[in-house]
Amino acid sequence: MAFSPLVRELMEALRCLPGVGPKSAQRMTFQLLQRDRGGARRLAEALAAAADGVGECRECRTLTEEPVCAICASPRRERSLLCIVENPADVSAVEEATDYGGLYFVLKGRLSPLDGIGPAELGLDALESRFAGGEVREIILATNPTVEGEATAQYVAEMARARGIVVSRIAHGVPVGGDLEYVDSGTLSHAFAGRREYR
Amino acid sequence: MAFSPLVRELMEALRCLPGVGPKSAQRMTFQLLQRDRGGARRLAEALAAAADGVGECRECRTLTEEPVCAICASPRRERSLLCIVENPADVSAVEEATDYGGLYFVLKGRLSPLDGIGPAELGLDALESRFAGGEVREIILATNPTVEGEATAQYVAEMARARGIVVSRIAHGVPVGGDLEYVDSGTLSHAFAGRREYR
Ligand SMILES: [Zn+2]
Ligand SMILES: [Zn+2]
Repeated sequence: MAFSPLVRELMEALRCLPGVGPKSAQRMTFQLLQRDRGGARRLAEALAAAADGVGECRECRTLTEEPVCAICASPRRERSLLCIVENPADVSAVEEATDYGGLYFVLKGRLSPLDGIGPAELGLDALESRFAGGEVREIILATNPTVEGEATAQYVAEMARARGIVVSRIAHGVPVGGDLEYVDSGTLSHAFAGRREYR
Repeated sequence: MAFSPLVRELMEALRCLPGVGPKSAQRMTFQLLQRDRGGARRLAEALAAAADGVGECRECRTLTEEPVCAICASPRRERSLLCIVENPADVSAVEEATDYGGLYFVLKGRLSPLDGIGPAELGLDALESRFAGGEVREIILATNPTVEGEATAQYVAEMARARGIVVSRIAHGVPVGGDLEYVDSGTLSHAFAGRREYR
């Protein structure tokens, strides 16, 4: 084997990154060790700090190192309005594309019985308690427009309606089968503005 | 901003990897924090260990944490034969594709006056001393078949000829303008077997 143990271990460890195969792991390793050791050290520290320090917001379940994330803690957000998204990246996408001023709830997935992902895995018991608390008066369903995202939206919509909460779904315009996270800002902004009550 | 400081810093630090833009940095961050913290910690350790521990072989200049790499230290390699390559990855490519049994010298680049890369940056003074030592009797030029790779081969060939060392160049068959590191094993093996004396 032409590589020393530390070099080989770095190549192997890089494979945990999505989309990184053996050739790109090799290219990354040489780039870092030959031209950017500072970048490698910074990345090592960022990974260790995030892996140890980041948990989830106890209110919305997004990734954060604080007990409550900055959005949930903000006194400027409308607390009666809740946007339901699949992933933390979707929070960022909505924040950047729209002037939405309410709170979020992050499912961290979507209903997928075959993969063992049911209501408990999505934190829907916590969401149910929150609905029961009475503060939420309207929800916007911003799950992805896939089959599973729609099923999840339907499920949450029924939970909310049972409490008399107004339910809307972001407008189509987000390409069907697409992933919210990768939609351009204009489309997402339009879909948000054109949301309709969900029946 | 929708992301907490530790999450944001991880996204930014991932950008030091070649080919990683903002969207893939975000995807990597969520993949690691939501599904693979073990992978993140392993990668953090591998990066720190390699960034601090890996230096270069004092004989061939390849990346290694030992003073002398495993190939240079091996008693089974033919010490009169030296293969000149641009990068550590090329050592690995030749090792995997051929039954070459000599030593290597890694330039860590190619002559490129406009980028300030001259003979000193490629360690050619050390190579000159090695030629002067008399152990090397034949070199195989395996720099990439690009304009700069050819110019580098010519330069090293002249140094070697001045010492009466036999010089060969790996055969074309490696696509011209291509990068040795990405050539399939069959082509590289063929190019190696079909090398000719370099004039
Ligand atoms: Zn929160
Ligand atoms: Zn060596």
